[in-house]
Amino acid sequence: MQRVDQRLVRVGLLGCGHVGGALIDLARQQRAPVAARTGIDLDIVKVAVRSASKERSVELDADVVTTDARTLVDDPDIDVIVEVIGGIEPARELILAALAAGKPVVTANKELLANHGAELYAAAAASGVDLLFEAAVAGGIPLMRPLRESLVGEPVGRVMGIVNGTTNYILSQMAEAGAEYGDALAQAQSLGYAERDPTADVEGYDAGAKAAIIATIAFGADVVAGDVYHEGISRITPTDIEFATRLGYVIKLLAIIERLPGAGATPSIAVRVHPALVPVDHPLASVRDSFNAVFIEGDAVGDLMLYGRGAGGPPTASAVFGDLIDAASNLRQRTHAPIGSLSEATIVSIDELDSAFYLNIDVVDRPGVLAEVAGVFGEHGVSIQSMEQSGLNDNARIIFITHSARERAVQATLRALRDLDSVGTVNGVLRVIGDG
Amino acid sequence: MQRVDQRLVRVGLLGCGHVGGALIDLARQQRAPVAARTGIDLDIVKVAVRSASKERSVELDADVVTTDARTLVDDPDIDVIVEVIGGIEPARELILAALAAGKPVVTANKELLANHGAELYAAAAASGVDLLFEAAVAGGIPLMRPLRESLVGEPVGRVMGIVNGTTNYILSQMAEAGAEYGDALAQAQSLGYAERDPTADVEGYDAGAKAAIIATIAFGADVVAGDVYHEGISRITPTDIEFATRLGYVIKLLAIIERLPGAGATPSIAVRVHPALVPVDHPLASVRDSFNAVFIEGDAVGDLMLYGRGAGGPPTASAVFGDLIDAASNLRQRTHAPIGSLSEATIVSIDELDSAFYLNIDVVDRPGVLAEVAGVFGEHGVSIQSMEQSGLNDNARIIFITHSARERAVQATLRALRDLDSVGTVNGVLRVIGDG
Repeated sequence: MQRVDQRLVRVGLLGCGHVGGALIDLARQQRAPVAARTGIDLDIVKVAVRSASKERSVELDADVVTTDARTLVDDPDIDVIVEVIGGIEPARELILAALAAGKPVVTANKELLANHGAELYAAAAASGVDLLFEAAVAGGIPLMRPLRESLVGEPVGRVMGIVNGTTNYILSQMAEAGAEYGDALAQAQSLGYAERDPTADVEGYDAGAKAAIIATIAFGADVVAGDVYHEGISRITPTDIEFATRLGYVIKLLAIIERLPGAGATPSIAVRVHPALVPVDHPLASVRDSFNAVFIEGDAVGDLMLYGRGAGGPPTASAVFGDLIDAASNLRQRTHAPIGSLSEATIVSIDELDSAFYLNIDVVDRPGVLAEVAGVFGEHGVSIQSMEQSGLNDNARIIFITHSARERAVQATLRALRDLDSVGTVNGVLRVIGDG
Repeated sequence: MQRVDQRLVRVGLLGCGHVGGALIDLARQQRAPVAARTGIDLDIVKVAVRSASKERSVELDADVVTTDARTLVDDPDIDVIVEVIGGIEPARELILAALAAGKPVVTANKELLANHGAELYAAAAASGVDLLFEAAVAGGIPLMRPLRESLVGEPVGRVMGIVNGTTNYILSQMAEAGAEYGDALAQAQSLGYAERDPTADVEGYDAGAKAAIIATIAFGADVVAGDVYHEGISRITPTDIEFATRLGYVIKLLAIIERLPGAGATPSIAVRVHPALVPVDHPLASVRDSFNAVFIEGDAVGDLMLYGRGAGGPPTASAVFGDLIDAASNLRQRTHAPIGSLSEATIVSIDELDSAFYLNIDVVDRPGVLAEVAGVFGEHGVSIQSMEQSGLNDNARIIFITHSARERAVQATLRALRDLDSVGTVNGVLRVIGDG
């Protein structure tokens, strides 16, 4: 077939929900300026949807829409595939087929990459085409490209991210409006920030999948969602927030990805998601509402932070669109941006990691209790940085901040404390973030 | 000549000051991991210096060092040139010669790009090789790459940057330690943040050059340093800072680059550098010390901020190293990352821009003065959002915050006020940043 315009790149879009619709809008609005600037004329020629009759925010000609996604992947007149269906299947099969057919793929599919990333990266490398996924982590924030390109030579030591907007909104509401967890969650649900079943967000599964992708790209290691330790925010109380504030901290749900010093042949990596006390003057502490941010610590570059909208149709579509222009440009130049070699990595268990801790413990208010409790810390080699008793009689509690201690030792301390007659409930157990 | 290792890329380094030395250290340390990850084996084979006998922080073999920079550019055994000499000449001539010889160039040269950018971008495009310059603006922060690639399709409306670490340090000291401008400057000088002659930093020339580069890349328009309106921070007083704090603002030196709505064929752009009152809950307000940050407002992506170290040897070297890996990889793939077509743009004069203003005016403390002063605002169509009189008798002053008003009208108001017998000195005139 005669190609009329060498600049034309024909795009097949799989999925037309919030992100797909926003992408169609953005691509229509920016088609002419992008063509003028880059010489690439992007045309979304086919859109695969689940139901052709569903009402959509964008108008689509009938001959553009199909319910058979596979026809887009197989169509020789389609140059690039964008996948915004989400979920593992059929997204995985469609992407693999597109890559095998030599079509670059742009995807926003966090779940798929966090579970089958290595397979997909290998398929893209084998075909010599792009697999780009800026939108899969932290939505509109340029993060994957800086990590893959700008920082590929940087000795990155640690990455800490607020990568789930729902939980950041809930924690911001609890801190700023004094809301209870349940009320803040209900508010997030009424605003559409949280799902009816909020488990994936509030228990840290979503952030864990993103942490796996960040670890893979930042450290060139094959890390999957199942490797990531995660705790959520559902047990955080207004009391924890009140004490954190008084002690100069803000509570944030963090994805923490770090390279540990180690003499082995394979790098040692720790990847985890949990709420943490962040010092109030740390840049992550001022990330409020449903915003996301990723803080990167490098030996040479120092501290970096990338901040923006982690979700929502238009911000996610913006990231997809940037990838799409890049993929189209690379296709024209017959080149691609490989992910690079992934190495094996040792994922270090949370039990072996060190952290300072905030502990909020109900005690019986009688002489000698503090000595008894402090003795348990000492027996387990956990040293106390500060402690404060509050309340009297039946409401007595002690707030401890420990020095950095091995997780295993802190958990053993907590088990021993729970066995004491003088200790009631252990209310809050939160890790405290320090420098590097 | 037989190439022993296809992965080897031989680098010629022009300049070996703080950045060049840090680059050599980083490249040595990361050579093996980068080769393992990317398949690119970077070897800095020649280093051109001004004086061969000068003491350096890095050890260099005698046969690596030369004082004749031109020999590196002309050497067929050198694949890529890194320029960290700074200044216009001989950097310009050397870069043009390298590009003409088909060598990709990585540069950190803000001054050169802000004055001769279009010539250099055209030379790179003509030779089909890379000209990369991440380090030229905001040091180690990935900014050029996100703007050039991630956001090339994004309708960016405004970019606001804290892009000069020296002035941000001075303003932070004034705000947090209550220092006078002169004392904070002296402290910055003693820490090595400010030059003995601090003019380029404190009067906004440095930020202005960076603003020109940002405008060029963000809007695809040919903007040079001379197009940028700039005001510095040397007239800011503790009184201004005190009032700003009380009103809920932080004073920051901002580079502001915006696309103005306009019906013309060429885009209308405003590019300026001046101190401004930033609302305390704006992400830029929490950028302290000598850190830099760039805040980007896009129609689709929403608000983004990129934060990090804007200067210093290792952070700048980190950005150069990322570019170097990219340039080497593109060279191997026989491709390059073009800057895209630059369009003509109309640079709109500051006189025609709208802003809210903070004004701090000494007045004679007698009945009727406020009415008289307010009348002058009204005559010029400048409406007042809030006012507050402080002090009595000879120390009476009024602090005004205006609604958004045309610069020309505000300046006319100030001239008319200065002519009033009841008005003494106009102490502070600062623009106030609002949303969008």
